[in-house]
Amino acid sequence: MSRVYVSDKIHEECGVFGVYAPSGENVAPDIYNGLIALQHRGQEAAGISVSRTDGPRGNILTKKGMGLVSEVFETGDIERLTGNIGVGHVRYSTTGGSVPENAQPIAMNYIKGSLALVHNGNIMNAEEIKEGQLYRGQAHYTTSDTEVLAYEIISERLQSDNIEDAVLRAARKLKGGYVCIIMSPRKLIGIRDPQGIKPLVLGKKENGFILASESAAVEAVGGRVVRDIEPGELIVISCDGIKSIRDLCGKKHAHCVFEYIYFARSDSVMDGAGIYEARFNAGQALARKASVEADLVTGVPDSGLIAAEGYAVQAGIPFTLAFHKNSYIGRSFIKPTESERKNAVHMKLSVIKGTVMGKRIILIDDSIVRGTTMRGIINMLREAGALQVHVRISSPPFLYPCYYGTDVPSSHQLIASGHSADEICERIGADSLAYLNVRDFKSMVGELPLCKACFDGKYPV
Amino acid sequence: MSRVYVSDKIHEECGVFGVYAPSGENVAPDIYNGLIALQHRGQEAAGISVSRTDGPRGNILTKKGMGLVSEVFETGDIERLTGNIGVGHVRYSTTGGSVPENAQPIAMNYIKGSLALVHNGNIMNAEEIKEGQLYRGQAHYTTSDTEVLAYEIISERLQSDNIEDAVLRAARKLKGGYVCIIMSPRKLIGIRDPQGIKPLVLGKKENGFILASESAAVEAVGGRVVRDIEPGELIVISCDGIKSIRDLCGKKHAHCVFEYIYFARSDSVMDGAGIYEARFNAGQALARKASVEADLVTGVPDSGLIAAEGYAVQAGIPFTLAFHKNSYIGRSFIKPTESERKNAVHMKLSVIKGTVMGKRIILIDDSIVRGTTMRGIINMLREAGALQVHVRISSPPFLYPCYYGTDVPSSHQLIASGHSADEICERIGADSLAYLNVRDFKSMVGELPLCKACFDGKYPV
Amino acid sequence: MSRVYVSDKIHEECGVFGVYAPSGENVAPDIYNGLIALQHRGQEAAGISVSRTDGPRGNILTKKGMGLVSEVFETGDIERLTGNIGVGHVRYSTTGGSVPENAQPIAMNYIKGSLALVHNGNIMNAEEIKEGQLYRGQAHYTTSDTEVLAYEIISERLQSDNIEDAVLRAARKLKGGYVCIIMSPRKLIGIRDPQGIKPLVLGKKENGFILASESAAVEAVGGRVVRDIEPGELIVISCDGIKSIRDLCGKKHAHCVFEYIYFARSDSVMDGAGIYEARFNAGQALARKASVEADLVTGVPDSGLIAAEGYAVQAGIPFTLAFHKNSYIGRSFIKPTESERKNAVHMKLSVIKGTVMGKRIILIDDSIVRGTTMRGIINMLREAGALQVHVRISSPPFLYPCYYGTDVPSSHQLIASGHSADEICERIGADSLAYLNVRDFKSMVGELPLCKACFDGKYPV
Amino acid sequence: MSRVYVSDKIHEECGVFGVYAPSGENVAPDIYNGLIALQHRGQEAAGISVSRTDGPRGNILTKKGMGLVSEVFETGDIERLTGNIGVGHVRYSTTGGSVPENAQPIAMNYIKGSLALVHNGNIMNAEEIKEGQLYRGQAHYTTSDTEVLAYEIISERLQSDNIEDAVLRAARKLKGGYVCIIMSPRKLIGIRDPQGIKPLVLGKKENGFILASESAAVEAVGGRVVRDIEPGELIVISCDGIKSIRDLCGKKHAHCVFEYIYFARSDSVMDGAGIYEARFNAGQALARKASVEADLVTGVPDSGLIAAEGYAVQAGIPFTLAFHKNSYIGRSFIKPTESERKNAVHMKLSVIKGTVMGKRIILIDDSIVRGTTMRGIINMLREAGALQVHVRISSPPFLYPCYYGTDVPSSHQLIASGHSADEICERIGADSLAYLNVRDFKSMVGELPLCKACFDGKYPV
Repeated sequence: MSRVYVSDKIHEECGVFGVYAPSGENVAPDIYNGLIALQHRGQEAAGISVSRTDGPRGNILTKKGMGLVSEVFETGDIERLTGNIGVGHVRYSTTGGSVPENAQPIAMNYIKGSLALVHNGNIMNAEEIKEGQLYRGQAHYTTSDTEVLAYEIISERLQSDNIEDAVLRAARKLKGGYVCIIMSPRKLIGIRDPQGIKPLVLGKKENGFILASESAAVEAVGGRVVRDIEPGELIVISCDGIKSIRDLCGKKHAHCVFEYIYFARSDSVMDGAGIYEARFNAGQALARKASVEADLVTGVPDSGLIAAEGYAVQAGIPFTLAFHKNSYIGRSFIKPTESERKNAVHMKLSVIKGTVMGKRIILIDDSIVRGTTMRGIINMLREAGALQVHVRISSPPFLYPCYYGTDVPSSHQLIASGHSADEICERIGADSLAYLNVRDFKSMVGELPLCKACFDGKYPV
Repeated sequence: MSRVYVSDKIHEECGVFGVYAPSGENVAPDIYNGLIALQHRGQEAAGISVSRTDGPRGNILTKKGMGLVSEVFETGDIERLTGNIGVGHVRYSTTGGSVPENAQPIAMNYIKGSLALVHNGNIMNAEEIKEGQLYRGQAHYTTSDTEVLAYEIISERLQSDNIEDAVLRAARKLKGGYVCIIMSPRKLIGIRDPQGIKPLVLGKKENGFILASESAAVEAVGGRVVRDIEPGELIVISCDGIKSIRDLCGKKHAHCVFEYIYFARSDSVMDGAGIYEARFNAGQALARKASVEADLVTGVPDSGLIAAEGYAVQAGIPFTLAFHKNSYIGRSFIKPTESERKNAVHMKLSVIKGTVMGKRIILIDDSIVRGTTMRGIINMLREAGALQVHVRISSPPFLYPCYYGTDVPSSHQLIASGHSADEICERIGADSLAYLNVRDFKSMVGELPLCKACFDGKYPV
Repeated sequence: MSRVYVSDKIHEECGVFGVYAPSGENVAPDIYNGLIALQHRGQEAAGISVSRTDGPRGNILTKKGMGLVSEVFETGDIERLTGNIGVGHVRYSTTGGSVPENAQPIAMNYIKGSLALVHNGNIMNAEEIKEGQLYRGQAHYTTSDTEVLAYEIISERLQSDNIEDAVLRAARKLKGGYVCIIMSPRKLIGIRDPQGIKPLVLGKKENGFILASESAAVEAVGGRVVRDIEPGELIVISCDGIKSIRDLCGKKHAHCVFEYIYFARSDSVMDGAGIYEARFNAGQALARKASVEADLVTGVPDSGLIAAEGYAVQAGIPFTLAFHKNSYIGRSFIKPTESERKNAVHMKLSVIKGTVMGKRIILIDDSIVRGTTMRGIINMLREAGALQVHVRISSPPFLYPCYYGTDVPSSHQLIASGHSADEICERIGADSLAYLNVRDFKSMVGELPLCKACFDGKYPV
Repeated sequence: MSRVYVSDKIHEECGVFGVYAPSGENVAPDIYNGLIALQHRGQEAAGISVSRTDGPRGNILTKKGMGLVSEVFETGDIERLTGNIGVGHVRYSTTGGSVPENAQPIAMNYIKGSLALVHNGNIMNAEEIKEGQLYRGQAHYTTSDTEVLAYEIISERLQSDNIEDAVLRAARKLKGGYVCIIMSPRKLIGIRDPQGIKPLVLGKKENGFILASESAAVEAVGGRVVRDIEPGELIVISCDGIKSIRDLCGKKHAHCVFEYIYFARSDSVMDGAGIYEARFNAGQALARKASVEADLVTGVPDSGLIAAEGYAVQAGIPFTLAFHKNSYIGRSFIKPTESERKNAVHMKLSVIKGTVMGKRIILIDDSIVRGTTMRGIINMLREAGALQVHVRISSPPFLYPCYYGTDVPSSHQLIASGHSADEICERIGADSLAYLNVRDFKSMVGELPLCKACFDGKYPV
């Protein structure tokens, strides 16, 4: 008897959220709600740091811990976190042993006051930068690249006139895909990697400014999206308003394609492209590319639903909800015997028999990672009386690792690595299988330049 | 600052689950998973009682507590709950102060051994029956009708040859809508009220038998549905197999219509009628009754989605997912100011702008209770650029209280009580509003006789 | 590696506390503090029930749970427990598996309103009484004799004019040693067994009355002791003042000798005899009976200290504190290896070397149960350089089980059962060993009639 | 209604414990038990760090948190903390808001591997040292001087051949009273301030070495005390055995007198002087200096008991235990009304009436801080019938702040500051009051040079 994790998905690592309210009102409630709106980007740890811009220069209040936002924070915590400037973070940890020490924000006191920092992404040359820090006598409490970034900003601050210069000087050294929000005693600063791999958006709310991983989080707290932070842009929010520093802009863009395929919320808009539309378009492209006769189109909840809607409209076949999804499973459940564990998926998803019996079904999902979940789902459909199950995947086969902060299983766990589409089709028990092509991404988000390295191995950095 | 409950739905009170494994294997893991499958029927308390049919006649192990199934039970608990017969319960408490004492199962020792009992529904004459018990010197730890039922069975057991006779004699006295599963030292007994208001289904799994509120729960644990327990039927599962006692059968049936409209899982089949089909059919009937020109049909997630699918097919207008639902909200969240609280719905639901901008929308939901949530949703649609919002409700206006165990707000909180459809339409800010008629239920579940008292005031008992 | 329980003492089972404040003020704070004052009588569970005498007749608020009083109750709990009448309980559970269900008070609703009950002691004929209850259809949630007592009072209430008559009629049937406090909607009732085996005292505080196991608890909450409840007395506290019912008085008294030897707090006075004085006198008697030349007298903290003081005064040998006791051990600690576990006592107690090196020591304790702890302590003294260790026990050898609610290990675990004093002396490694005689109890508490059954096997009931 | 802290004592700030087992066995269980033995030195936070000397050079496992040792660690934690070298800490925090971040050990990774550090005392020039660190770009997570010390060692390590040189170079800069245990990947290092204000002792256990604040902690885990670490000595324990570096030795010694008066366990021996003997001697000196006719001598438990014993022996008046101390109070309890709060002491201490009624009493304690507790105790004695209460304090009036890590209330809260002995006597309601003189410390610990700055204002550093 043991608990079984029921996810077979690629994971994003983090969500970031920052607020500055010049008027002085407490921002912790908005950060809390913003993090709940970003919870899909990371469920293993959460944290908030706040301070007062009219207070002493080193007085940061922080609460962070392991678990969901709603588990880490109690009402009293939010009340105690008084401050009109703050940053928050939700984290999915890629390392086997996720440890409390690695929770963010990282909050430190240094020569110019205090600094709290939240970060999404991966700094590829962190070890190299860290070595220089070690030689300067800097020590690390954690093993994260976030702490390396914090120290580099602090080091640069010694010979900079202001915090934004220090951030800029530090950022010049970074390689990778990242966004970062830094809270200094008086300013909220956002920075986005020059390729724009990771997303960051600017929002506004009555008398406050917001930085967030996704537009949906801005709107969830009652804010209005102003615009995306540009790739390479450094944005400084202070009592003087907003200042934009574009010294690192001008590189070739490469927005992470997986944000559009799976990571981001369907109600977000990222770099001008709506997530819903991207997925709907992918479904349409898939229908054009790999049509098949069938009675209904359905999607694996929730990852395949929107592409299924697009496929259905394009193919002129009814879009049908064929599954019930149990939203009370949480992150694990208990199975009595080893033999039943392979069917774990049936606790989370179940087939609505009446809709599939005697039917030829087109089943859409955004990706196949290990293949076990898809095999279980197809098996359930057949047991419920489906005549045929044609699988259509709204992205290409997943083949290459990501170096920019996305957690992917090692190659030998990826079913697409070493198996042809036909072999995969047989393994998962489908009647037919088709993927989207890399070149079809054009239908998805138009001319927006994408990082598609996980599909084609062409890394932008 | 305070936590806000984000639900404006009618609530079912309970889910019940029982297993007997003659072969002797532990049933607690199946009960645990069965309760997770029934969690939508009650989220405030959960409990499991088990015993061994080959053990001493009074040795029940129980764990129960406040919260979700996954919160009440830890892995170790399930391991400690050793027994091959058992019952489980999930509870939604209707009283303001939900207290641990009222969690089920109720487990007692009495003259013939032990008894554990779980119950869904409401015994209308409980107070009257309780009075007799009090005169006999019986005392009550709780204020629930479940304890009254347990005592009545125990009292009748004194002059009965066996437990099933005692249950039958007790059941003869009961008025109301109820199902109950009783675990005696050697038998698992299910009883369903003579009108069949509340549901109960018999399942089978390898060498074990299951009783459950819904067919989906039987299947979630890998079982197969055998049949519904008939209205008035008393079923006895023991080492001698299954025995059916039909002394109370033959009354006029009146299955709860709200199970079909909202309570039950969409993948369940209840008294021969599939829940998915019922909701799909309701949507189709609604389209026939109240058609309107529009660009897309959508549903409030998750309660309106299936009816929306039916409406769309009937009307020949595309069915579109227009909302993102945040599944990490849990049961409450924190809002900074009173004024924002009225918009609480935007944390849980958000509109996918691209799909609604400039569109005429038909918005389906299963019911309108207070109207506040619907007003918020329509407001969000308009802010996202919807040109028109036509609301269609897949049930009639909700007007009368339920005496059979469903929690409904008092009359003055029901928007349909005292307001015409036109007034409601104006209050929620819709362009048009239409309900299903009571007579349209025929399209939904055919000739199945329903209790529709909450809509027409005609109470079956 | 595992946790080791570091107690080798006979255990009392419970402490009871009740308050009634006619003026209407909340009594939960006093009950909470009274229970902390009685915590030495039971550390495994605690609970409080309160109600309002001007409220409806069935509205009891209860909080109970496993653990110390300070663990079970949080500040908010005490605030929520509003009521001007209430009872509280601390429990030491004698059964291996201590379960939450058995925590007290027991609170029930019955035909005449509500009733909460706390109990210390053991009702020897509980099974017999329970049988009658089962035949009347009464069922039991717990396995405790306390619930049996509650049901018997309820049963008798059916044919009694008032609650005190019912308690009296129920008490007539009881055999054993017990005290009980019953809270009815309007009255606080105390009853003490006719032999007076268990203690109960009446106190007064400004405008309220108190019933408590010990006088020290009355004083701890700022009250004044009025008098002991007499053996067999039933006392009724209501808005009409205090009424005493003595129908069961007149039996031969037999106060539990172990209250004087070990259970009670040293600052309590019980049935006219001060606990401190009793222990001091026992030490003096021991010095007269079993003198030996030595350099200092010391006691095992805290159980042997007062008798050591008496011994020292009588013998004219200095009384010295030879041990440091670690008060942060709690109820268990972690030992790395099995071999070290036998020396577990050295974590809790350690010898002050300077005071014992080269000295001949008289070591006093109140009893020897298994002998392992005493052997460890003597070993520590010798390692610290003690020349001689003469053990003197301020009670006779412990030989017989107690049927009145005291937890004693089974015979084969008692070192005095089957071993002569000389054998025990050798086993524990002492230079000499002497016990008090049963007849010496006269020196201890004068003519007060005692139950000494655990020493002489003469049971009073 | 609120919780009341029932202590009016001067507080030590910390206890430290380190173990190195060359044989490779896990040291966490010994550290856990060692910390429990040192719990009296700090009850607000606890922590343990361990690593393996044969593992990679940066792999420290740490668990720390707020609360008692038994609250911070569960059995599983100790099992997970695998390592044959480790350090532990108990903390009393002097700052109003005690925060988790300040819990120790501090564990960091730096250029030469890893380092964990625990610290007792106060580094007076920490702010000055910190400034240099800030200019070098080092940032601080906490506000403690412990982190400053860790960084200084790390900085010095850059230009040192080994860790002990770095510790020595760092220590040369420190002013204050402190001891510190540093765990490097391969070595356990202890350092004691040159005046020897704070204590540190070396112990041995089978095949392991121990460093601890007190000898009693070494013995509590089954070890043997080897010797005190000398003032200014740096001790290095590694696989090569023990190395002593005495470069900082030779300063004038000044052992903290309060360790002898109150802080240390009575069974510890510190710098050659037994704590028990010191307190006993102080009591004798007090009897010689300020004798008075009386019937009995008693002490406030537990702080005044040993001095009372000494006084009694010297004066030839019987030493009597006049108080019962409730050991279940924990650190706070609940009082119903403001007016009763001033008598809070009666929950923790109560008088044994029989021993004091009609008696002239000499009452000993180690110190008077605010005077409120003493006033309450004297009041209790008078209410219990004491004829006279003569207070004797086994230390001089407490007048000056401590800069070496002891928490003392500010001057205006100290009753001795601004009041003569006669005024204090009147305020606390005693019949007479006498203190020990500063010159009487000679009787206490002989020629051992003491820091008595809190009494005479002569600071050694």
